[in-house]
Amino acid sequence: MAKLRVESFTISLDGFGAGPNQDIDNPLGVGGTSLHGWALATRTIQKNLFGSDSGEAGIDDDFAARGFQNIGAWILGRNMFGPVRGPWPDETWRGWWGENPVYHVPVFVLTNYPRAPLVMEGGTTFHFVTEGISAALARAREAAEGKDVRLGGGVNVMQQYLRQRLIDEMHIAIAPVLLGSGERLFEGTNLPALGYACTTHEPSPLATHLILTRQ
Amino acid sequence: MAKLRVESFTISLDGFGAGPNQDIDNPLGVGGTSLHGWALATRTIQKNLFGSDSGEAGIDDDFAARGFQNIGAWILGRNMFGPVRGPWPDETWRGWWGENPVYHVPVFVLTNYPRAPLVMEGGTTFHFVTEGISAALARAREAAEGKDVRLGGGVNVMQQYLRQRLIDEMHIAIAPVLLGSGERLFEGTNLPALGYACTTHEPSPLATHLILTRQ
Repeated sequence: MAKLRVESFTISLDGFGAGPNQDIDNPLGVGGTSLHGWALATRTIQKNLFGSDSGEAGIDDDFAARGFQNIGAWILGRNMFGPVRGPWPDETWRGWWGENPVYHVPVFVLTNYPRAPLVMEGGTTFHFVTEGISAALARAREAAEGKDVRLGGGVNVMQQYLRQRLIDEMHIAIAPVLLGSGERLFEGTNLPALGYACTTHEPSPLATHLILTRQ
Repeated sequence: MAKLRVESFTISLDGFGAGPNQDIDNPLGVGGTSLHGWALATRTIQKNLFGSDSGEAGIDDDFAARGFQNIGAWILGRNMFGPVRGPWPDETWRGWWGENPVYHVPVFVLTNYPRAPLVMEGGTTFHFVTEGISAALARAREAAEGKDVRLGGGVNVMQQYLRQRLIDEMHIAIAPVLLGSGERLFEGTNLPALGYACTTHEPSPLATHLILTRQ
């Protein structure tokens, strides 16, 4: 069966998946960008995000590339989609990624506030789901047509899916930075009790890569 | 000036420095022993703890060996010394390590309950300090005669010293295991705000080694 996968989700040495005080200038919270040094250096991210032919091959790139393989749909928490809070004031905000977002597949955005689907260039359509995480997963699975669904975050959404044991596989990278505060990915989440184990551990000079698999 | 150092302190992927439910059969809490796979494989630990000539050289061994260099005294929390809680019922408990403990220098054990010093074989004397962490540090520094003091843990004692910015340098290893519950080393501790930064990041196949230094 198609999987629900987390890919290239990076936490700090002190366990934070994002810095504090996310806003339009700090989409990953203050200091959050420093988490992604390993990914930004890769060929995969340079090409997919910036259209550049620079970037390096190697362990980091292998893990970054995994994240784009066999993905038929994405699920995002609302804060991953933008800094707007509360009811949508208008249709102005169209995501962090410009008119041709990096997804190129249907993306299901979890929100408490309804909004019409947003068709972007390049195959990405943002669907706004107000019926909760199970409904979003069902719709994403259907849209993925047999491919896997990638769960993009943020931390709160990942925790909700984890506690329901809905995630099949998580690639987590631990970056050599300290954030000090923000949202802890594993706060209040007992992974072994939920049936997860670390099945891959592959360090690179820029990050420690893990795959946690539901047994 | 001589330093207060943490060495070879291992945490799990989910941030725990010990498993839950420490007792005489589980000195590191349930599951806690699995944290130390990297250290147990090293030449340094095989020799110092088990008198064996087996064990491997390499990155893990380099970090394990650091922990025994230039150490003139240790500080331990009481739970590191033993499973006894509350007032000492008698003098029976003499540590986890037999009559010739691994320290070979004065060891200052933090406790709320006074007890006479315990002179062991091989140069180790356990002193029981009831006047708090600063007093223990002052006494350990004096006993160390210019060498560094090593802080052995556990988690609660490390947090107390961290929050007072008394630790100069911490070698932390992240082991590829999940504990799920227990004591989180960095719980409620904002390391950057306290002035700590990650100054070394060196992964091995068995652990990710970090050095956090007070700036």
